[in-house]
Amino acid sequence: MQYIESLSQLIEQFRSLPGIGAKSATRLAYHILKMDKAEVEKLSKILLTAKETIGYCSVCFNLTDKDPCYICSSEERDSTTLCVVEDPKDVAAMERTREYKGLYHILHGSLSPLEGIGPNELKIKELLARINEDISEVIIATNPDVEGEATSMYLSRLLKPLGVRVTRIAHGLPMGSDLEYADEVTLLKALENRREI
Amino acid sequence: MQYIESLSQLIEQFRSLPGIGAKSATRLAYHILKMDKAEVEKLSKILLTAKETIGYCSVCFNLTDKDPCYICSSEERDSTTLCVVEDPKDVAAMERTREYKGLYHILHGSLSPLEGIGPNELKIKELLARINEDISEVIIATNPDVEGEATSMYLSRLLKPLGVRVTRIAHGLPMGSDLEYADEVTLLKALENRREI
Repeated sequence: MQYIESLSQLIEQFRSLPGIGAKSATRLAYHILKMDKAEVEKLSKILLTAKETIGYCSVCFNLTDKDPCYICSSEERDSTTLCVVEDPKDVAAMERTREYKGLYHILHGSLSPLEGIGPNELKIKELLARINEDISEVIIATNPDVEGEATSMYLSRLLKPLGVRVTRIAHGLPMGSDLEYADEVTLLKALENRREI
Repeated sequence: MQYIESLSQLIEQFRSLPGIGAKSATRLAYHILKMDKAEVEKLSKILLTAKETIGYCSVCFNLTDKDPCYICSSEERDSTTLCVVEDPKDVAAMERTREYKGLYHILHGSLSPLEGIGPNELKIKELLARINEDISEVIIATNPDVEGEATSMYLSRLLKPLGVRVTRIAHGLPMGSDLEYADEVTLLKALENRREI
């Protein structure tokens, strides 16, 4: 079959997105061709607008369309607490708890010597620069994996000498899970971190 | 969290695409924000270009960027045989066999009274108009499901009086499958359609 150049380009574009394989890409491309022209123009425009209007907050490095971002510039947030996360997606996850009222600092990754990501590749200098007498606690909420733990250790060694309280989010059994299926590392952490009830 | 308008619009747009749920849509949106601006512009442009340049062939109603399409206007195809399929994707599937050398006719759906799709919603008039003494065979390759079978029956009743040979693709066990796991309808069809070897 002599293929249609712009159709195969479209399929290729979709394939290059994360989590989209050959079949999904083809289905999406055919869907685009079935959509109204106005809808495709809207999709195309929203892609550009998002890319053009969204950048990083110069304070916390979260994604934002104004600088400083809504959280950094909010009067309702508790500016004495900083929560350090790896990624903007982690801010969204924290916000879904509706409990945390402090500010954030986004590292944009975790220390990973194997991938060539050292302290200079992360927003660590910028984090240290934010620490002053107004900040009473830094909660390190990097992922509970090898890189996240290493980053957490590294940060706590840098932050403690600055006289700030440094805490780490708890590791343990996820709510609604089953002891029987818990992996041993998680169970060990849950046991170590047991509390009086 | 005060959300970023253009980010949530982007997530919503991705969610409206088939097979993309809330999590995939979010992941895709964050991916877009991480892409270079030039790449996003390219994606945006390719979407528009595909929609603008691709239409339907006025002969077979396949997707095409020239009219008549490559297949209809090819001198190498056998113009005595028409293969009737439901959807442009089915043409791509047939072409992958690299065996079929005839032409196509795309119905753009199958008869489905429950969804209000009757003969007038499909390219059936246009199919009948293509039948002349040059066409010796019409292969009906609608899907082997209830609607596809009904469409096949309906078409064969219309086509046979025109003096053309009407055939239906075979139903049976898929290659590489296992008798043990075959559903009974498929197995029954495979038995009914058994051939001398």
